[in-house]
Amino acid sequence: MAATPLVVSVPDREYAEALADLDGVDVVVWDMAQPHERGADIRLAVMPYMTRLRLADIARGLDALEVVQLQSAGYEEFLPDVPKGVTLCNAAGVHDASTAELALTLTLASIRDIPKFVESQARSTWEPLVLRSALADSRVLVVGYGQIGRAIARRFAPFEVSLTAVASQARAGDDVVPHVHGIDELPDLLPDHDVVVVIVPLSDATRGLFCAATLGRMPDGALLVNVARGPVVDTDALVAECASGRLRAALDVTAPEPLPADHPLWTTPGVLVTPHIGGATQAMRPRAKALVRRQVQAMLAGRPPVNAVNRAG
Amino acid sequence: MAATPLVVSVPDREYAEALADLDGVDVVVWDMAQPHERGADIRLAVMPYMTRLRLADIARGLDALEVVQLQSAGYEEFLPDVPKGVTLCNAAGVHDASTAELALTLTLASIRDIPKFVESQARSTWEPLVLRSALADSRVLVVGYGQIGRAIARRFAPFEVSLTAVASQARAGDDVVPHVHGIDELPDLLPDHDVVVVIVPLSDATRGLFCAATLGRMPDGALLVNVARGPVVDTDALVAECASGRLRAALDVTAPEPLPADHPLWTTPGVLVTPHIGGATQAMRPRAKALVRRQVQAMLAGRPPVNAVNRAG
Repeated sequence: MAATPLVVSVPDREYAEALADLDGVDVVVWDMAQPHERGADIRLAVMPYMTRLRLADIARGLDALEVVQLQSAGYEEFLPDVPKGVTLCNAAGVHDASTAELALTLTLASIRDIPKFVESQARSTWEPLVLRSALADSRVLVVGYGQIGRAIARRFAPFEVSLTAVASQARAGDDVVPHVHGIDELPDLLPDHDVVVVIVPLSDATRGLFCAATLGRMPDGALLVNVARGPVVDTDALVAECASGRLRAALDVTAPEPLPADHPLWTTPGVLVTPHIGGATQAMRPRAKALVRRQVQAMLAGRPPVNAVNRAG
Repeated sequence: MAATPLVVSVPDREYAEALADLDGVDVVVWDMAQPHERGADIRLAVMPYMTRLRLADIARGLDALEVVQLQSAGYEEFLPDVPKGVTLCNAAGVHDASTAELALTLTLASIRDIPKFVESQARSTWEPLVLRSALADSRVLVVGYGQIGRAIARRFAPFEVSLTAVASQARAGDDVVPHVHGIDELPDLLPDHDVVVVIVPLSDATRGLFCAATLGRMPDGALLVNVARGPVVDTDALVAECASGRLRAALDVTAPEPLPADHPLWTTPGVLVTPHIGGATQAMRPRAKALVRRQVQAMLAGRPPVNAVNRAG
């Protein structure tokens, strides 16, 4: 007897093609803008990326729904709407390469003065040869050592730097760092680091973590790179430290966000701002497709969902 | 009986301090602007960095001179003036970390659109969220696989890219690439690579290597990164390929150099220019001091000089 196929909805044809070779799966393309005729059969629903859709609206009539797969790492806004018995899964891992790569991009661009050379180029000016700063020999502190933190550290490793990692709790190291320090050690670690990359999740414990006192522990000339969430850094305190010329900053996230046109961060010396582009690259597509495939395979095999972020009640 | 000390001249006090603990060495600080009273005793002379001094002038009266240590990797201009019996040594290795780091900086800044965001920041504008390009999953070709080429490849390795290396002759690979292709394979390799980093020495064989025909083999949207020497690339051909929007380029070296204010490269879309800043960073100091120390130790031990670039005749 043939088993009932697993009905999976995906937001576009590209995802459908990535699952086409799997037996026992019936893939429907559904962008979730309108109800789908197969809605009542769908057991796994993959959400579109960067959607403003609300789960409460989508899930109506999805009587067989077991798993909702997000394409973002963030999931807090969806949690209140998850129907009873449904597992919500985030896209942890999908944006790691892109975000880690941006952390290196911001660090290198800042240290090697790329914003200055872009401005010189706009004035068709060849700057004179002087000894400039380099990343090599820098002491790099990665604050937040989950998947993305490790991906960042791994990319820094060949640059002839020393690497220190901080996580919420101290623990043993890995192939990149010999030891992971606890967040309680942060104030003592900061004075000995030239580059501080922040990639902690936003929580009550991390909101305002880089306040005036914390920033004040960073040595003169140090660089703060934020690829986490804006509210982890006290924006006013950071503007003050950079305006004085004591610190530099490279920020893919800000508070507020988007940054209004009259915000002082735009014009503070030594500050490079990118508009929250960390994970939103073409690198996410193949990784998202691979995650959806792993999710389908888990359901086919009767294994627990991958990347579950709630307890289906 | 005490041996005669080895008299070494260094361009400033920092180098002298780096040698202070070595027995049997008499270090004199000499910037070479005027003759030195100990000139006739100097056996190893370390040249200042970025000097316009000519070896023919410096070497006058240096009757004991055995080795001249340059601080640049380039040495061609000094060769004709090397006194008979003197060995000229370059600073191979000293600028590797800084140059390799810049190759990554230029690549990442270009691919992650940093020049565009610098311009947006100057207009206090938060760009909308769209899926942008990333380095991850790119096919990277390193053309020139000497010390700096390997340093570049090593830094690319953790970025989830595929890496291909090309050298003057095909040979076995290393811990980063499984195989090194010969330069004769370049035309066949180019169509399958998204990022091409050029770090070949300038010679008759490499002058104009990236001519219109070679550039034409690169796929649409590909990025050319030149951290070698300007004349390796045909500037007019590159301007044409970038002006059409087909290729992008990031150049730390240009032909001509410095680039005059009215040169089209400054304003060609998709071109990022830095003013030959590759090796000129604070990373060179500790590496140069370590090289001078190795050179002194070689002479003390009666071993051949390190990094000799001529045959002392």
